[in-house]
Amino acid sequence: MSLLVIGSVAFDAIETPFGKTDKIVGGAATYASLAASYFCDQVKIVAVVGDDFPQSEINDFHNHHIDTKGLQIKKGEKSFFWSGRYHNDMNSRDTLITELNVLGDFDPIIPDSYQDSEFLMLGNLTPQVQQTVIKRLNKRPKLIVMDTMNFWMDIALNDLLETIKLIDVLTINDAEARQLSGEYSLVKAANKILAMGPKYLIIKKGEHGALLFGEGKIFSAPALPLEDVFDPTGAGDTFAGGFIGYMAKVGTVNFTNMKNAIIYGSALASFCVEKFGTEKLKNLTEQEIASRLQQFVSLSKFEII
Amino acid sequence: MSLLVIGSVAFDAIETPFGKTDKIVGGAATYASLAASYFCDQVKIVAVVGDDFPQSEINDFHNHHIDTKGLQIKKGEKSFFWSGRYHNDMNSRDTLITELNVLGDFDPIIPDSYQDSEFLMLGNLTPQVQQTVIKRLNKRPKLIVMDTMNFWMDIALNDLLETIKLIDVLTINDAEARQLSGEYSLVKAANKILAMGPKYLIIKKGEHGALLFGEGKIFSAPALPLEDVFDPTGAGDTFAGGFIGYMAKVGTVNFTNMKNAIIYGSALASFCVEKFGTEKLKNLTEQEIASRLQQFVSLSKFEII
Repeated sequence: MSLLVIGSVAFDAIETPFGKTDKIVGGAATYASLAASYFCDQVKIVAVVGDDFPQSEINDFHNHHIDTKGLQIKKGEKSFFWSGRYHNDMNSRDTLITELNVLGDFDPIIPDSYQDSEFLMLGNLTPQVQQTVIKRLNKRPKLIVMDTMNFWMDIALNDLLETIKLIDVLTINDAEARQLSGEYSLVKAANKILAMGPKYLIIKKGEHGALLFGEGKIFSAPALPLEDVFDPTGAGDTFAGGFIGYMAKVGTVNFTNMKNAIIYGSALASFCVEKFGTEKLKNLTEQEIASRLQQFVSLSKFEII
Repeated sequence: MSLLVIGSVAFDAIETPFGKTDKIVGGAATYASLAASYFCDQVKIVAVVGDDFPQSEINDFHNHHIDTKGLQIKKGEKSFFWSGRYHNDMNSRDTLITELNVLGDFDPIIPDSYQDSEFLMLGNLTPQVQQTVIKRLNKRPKLIVMDTMNFWMDIALNDLLETIKLIDVLTINDAEARQLSGEYSLVKAANKILAMGPKYLIIKKGEHGALLFGEGKIFSAPALPLEDVFDPTGAGDTFAGGFIGYMAKVGTVNFTNMKNAIIYGSALASFCVEKFGTEKLKNLTEQEIASRLQQFVSLSKFEII
């Protein structure tokens, strides 16, 4: 089924204990749509870049069967740019530079041919823009997944609360779940957040995996223990993209499918962090993904007699 | 099969955001032997208390079929006493009082009738005393599990390193694994620690579950997400006791059985934190345990097609 992905398509410059990059392509919609493309062949992107954005990167989207009709290219303007430095633990980072550029007045225009999208991924962006996309769709998608972050809780909480009323699945990390709910216990936090509107909540816990709450049930997904996390940038977007890409593939929205979708998202995220930027994510084989999924199975399988 | 448990039997006074206790019975060997007693009917304890230790508590051990022949009662002396206050997040705590008392010169005497023990749980104590127990056993047990903590890494690292050469399974938390190995990545940390001697390593991650490393494999066990953690005291000891108690029940040491043992240990630990001290742990029914185990199954089960 078709999947509409909205989010940033941008440049990042990243420093980690393993090295640093020049400007490389990043952005929530980039990671999410690439991840989703492994499971769904009708990914359609809505985003904005400047004319500094390389055609070769747009070609890479096409190679992944990602429709870029909704990718606006602003003449004479520059793409969004973020630069950051990760600490040694890879769990925290400092932002060095943020240049909004074309993202400052992004108006998410939905091409007519996108109107029938059955799945919608709202990648991390201002909640106001995320909401605009929902309102511009003539027909409500079957499943709306929204990713967000503490930044919007700090500066645009009311918009955020308005937007999450309209969605099905919210994905945030554990610190954000605690901030949004004011509860330390993740069970209590989840109950409060589900009462705000979303039917499902996914709490991303990085190296500790993820929790899915909804339908009165809880699922705990492991993360793959890795020798090295080379670059965590985009892991959350990749997770979300893999999640909704798998849901768009199976088509039926229920807790059982969502559990698998979380494992698929986690598997893709585990690849993402193995190289800088989107490098690893652009060149995965079906065999690599299948074998990584089996690692998740053996990692967490047990039989209580 | 028979299980020898060594560790502290002591008094605790605990403050949590939910309330505070007077002196109540605690100690690593108390929690571990009570937990193990649900799976193994030949638990034998080696520990020391003063004559301030209530007979009613010793009777409770007997009610759980725990052999207390190795529990030394020192006339005119006082039992070990620890008092602590948990922070709001329940993950960190301040020690308010530590009175070593009888534990200061604890000589772990092994009764003859304990000599045939096939499983050995070295609860958290000075590594020197843990090592003495191993050396005093005429026959090496089939499985030696050792729990320890950062405190001994700080003040008795050499003794600790000598002792872990002699054991099969080490249980420590993630911060301790990082401290002991000097590696941030838990996979690298595990590889280094396994090279120090233990065949298996269990990394306890509190609300994030536990990881088992060994035989070139990794198992990730979930923790049960709880609305409230009432009192975390003894959760690690309970986990270890449930783990080795289950291993003593099934008798065969291999990775598959250890995976289940971790789930059993986690299930008992999830009960432990529901009340102050050993209260919950003393009065569990088979039905309660079975139903909690099923919660772990549904929490983590998924089917990749």
